[in-house]
Amino acid sequence: MKIGLSELEALKEGAAVLGCGGGGDTHLSYLLAKQAVMEKGPVALLKVHELDDDDLIIPTAMMGAPIIMSERVPAGDEALASLRALERHLGGRAAATMPIEVGGLNVFTSLTTAALGGMPLVDADGMGRACPELQMCTFNAYGVPCAPMTISSEHGHMVLIQSGDNPSMERVARSVVIGMGGVGYIAAYPMTGKQAKETSVVGTVSLAVRIGRALIEARRRKAHPAGAVLDAFAQSTYGQGMVLIEGRVLEVQRRRTGRAVKGRVVLEGSDSYTGQTGIVQFQNENLTAELNGRVVSTVPDLIVLLHHESGSPVLIENLKVGLKVTCMIVPTPDITVTGEALALWGPRAFGYSCDHRSCREERWR
Amino acid sequence: MKIGLSELEALKEGAAVLGCGGGGDTHLSYLLAKQAVMEKGPVALLKVHELDDDDLIIPTAMMGAPIIMSERVPAGDEALASLRALERHLGGRAAATMPIEVGGLNVFTSLTTAALGGMPLVDADGMGRACPELQMCTFNAYGVPCAPMTISSEHGHMVLIQSGDNPSMERVARSVVIGMGGVGYIAAYPMTGKQAKETSVVGTVSLAVRIGRALIEARRRKAHPAGAVLDAFAQSTYGQGMVLIEGRVLEVQRRRTGRAVKGRVVLEGSDSYTGQTGIVQFQNENLTAELNGRVVSTVPDLIVLLHHESGSPVLIENLKVGLKVTCMIVPTPDITVTGEALALWGPRAFGYSCDHRSCREERWR
Repeated sequence: MKIGLSELEALKEGAAVLGCGGGGDTHLSYLLAKQAVMEKGPVALLKVHELDDDDLIIPTAMMGAPIIMSERVPAGDEALASLRALERHLGGRAAATMPIEVGGLNVFTSLTTAALGGMPLVDADGMGRACPELQMCTFNAYGVPCAPMTISSEHGHMVLIQSGDNPSMERVARSVVIGMGGVGYIAAYPMTGKQAKETSVVGTVSLAVRIGRALIEARRRKAHPAGAVLDAFAQSTYGQGMVLIEGRVLEVQRRRTGRAVKGRVVLEGSDSYTGQTGIVQFQNENLTAELNGRVVSTVPDLIVLLHHESGSPVLIENLKVGLKVTCMIVPTPDITVTGEALALWGPRAFGYSCDHRSCREERWR
Repeated sequence: MKIGLSELEALKEGAAVLGCGGGGDTHLSYLLAKQAVMEKGPVALLKVHELDDDDLIIPTAMMGAPIIMSERVPAGDEALASLRALERHLGGRAAATMPIEVGGLNVFTSLTTAALGGMPLVDADGMGRACPELQMCTFNAYGVPCAPMTISSEHGHMVLIQSGDNPSMERVARSVVIGMGGVGYIAAYPMTGKQAKETSVVGTVSLAVRIGRALIEARRRKAHPAGAVLDAFAQSTYGQGMVLIEGRVLEVQRRRTGRAVKGRVVLEGSDSYTGQTGIVQFQNENLTAELNGRVVSTVPDLIVLLHHESGSPVLIENLKVGLKVTCMIVPTPDITVTGEALALWGPRAFGYSCDHRSCREERWR
């Protein structure tokens, strides 16, 4: 599979679904990727089984505040500069790059890097969704060191974190990004092809394209967008998701605490959901979903709000009272819900007092 | 000249004088240096004219909050690790290290590095005193790039800032240090021997030893400590300083704003200064000195408070009402008061609305 202009269109929608309300607005990064693909041609998407065990794979991402990125538009080659600097440090050449985070804008960061660097993109990532912190990824869960990593800014800084244990890398790297003004472009978790096979969430880039295509096609045919998206997930390693509730936004609470926008949205059921109440709690991304007072799904389950009509995924920053939405929940692949993974991004890692619950186990409808 | 145990004792006092009330308590760093010198032997002090023009000189320092350093006692070899990492990045071997900041604890950081690394210490620095920020040094004033620089922590992080313009390096490096928990050990402003000759404040380490010796000797002989210290400065490139006022602390105001402890101390003259009032404003270091309502001396002039009896320099954190002190002001070498240098650390760089005034020009006593 290659990612050309038509795949990019679909990916923009699919990555937003996997963003779970966060991960940054995809529009600007999509435009940068489109420009790179128009200049350099389509990007080859490599399945992990196509990698040689000895290949050097260097994942790339944007780290920081998407809103700042939209004010300080990057040239597009910042993450590639980080990748090249990491290559020089390691004394090797990357066979491919890979998204750390497939959800939201970051799939485009690595896609643009692949296009500009003339290298393939691995059809996998380290989250299978969007997550707010660097340690919240399967690479970390299954033993890939985050260091050495590089961080560059559009002002020409290049920072290499040569060493440091994984739990503290988020803190040090985040500080660097803040020192750079709030946005940095990173190359991290350098790994072998063998490690990529063992530690990544596979097939997520092509899945995002399929989800986007399903959504666009449903929109064109005026079919039910959530149903089309759920069908696409059902044919993947994610499995069968469900609609939690359809209805209107009754209330939105947001507060800025530390680095996250925390809060919740209350949904009042309509149509066949009349009389029911859904509550989604979020911290940058949607993290828990309740129906009628019972938590039925938590991170890493995908909890996604779609505009009722267009099916477009709704970013948390765009939630407002009266908006009619469909709340969809989808389980994530097995590799994302092991003990190691849940320790990093289960609900307790975000300060909630409940254990992980997945719509996979729910049989209440 | 070699720095052995007896020189270390004197250096501890002299560096505190050059700390101008800040630069960190020297005791812990002195002990680390003493341990290194006991293990490895005295450190050779090299005059800049003894350097080859092509020598690689790598200055070293601690960056961050001294109080945190005293809670998280380092092993002592952190700055050497940063120096070695920078050597590897540059593909060269340092002929010597050099203090970035001779005042306060940082002369010991580079001294310990020299001892443990088996290399000489250059008898010069980039400030001729203590200053709070990385860009406030003669190396920067006269065109030495701060990058590449390395920062390590006692937890094993090693960060290399490969590129970045000098004005922004303080911000990025400070962020790294904060991410490391508040203290980092740096190697920065790598330069040639030629650059060291052209851009450093020369002879400051040996001067600190001479000042300390004068102070210790005066204390032993129960002579006037400030007079002995001023005599030592008078025979250096710093020149003739003076006693501004002797008296008691009437009032101390301190407030924490951003990264600095800002405030002022009001001194009520006693003995031959009865009826006079001195005010010293500080931001981590003493920065301006007023006598009877008139500013007579500003940074980079050394403004130093000595305990009236012992002659020991008083840290701003130890100022308290009723303490009897001698306030001494000393001009600094010509290289520190050019237009380029004053733009970096004149009073306006700290937000004061006056131009630099030096006791060098004052003829009012």
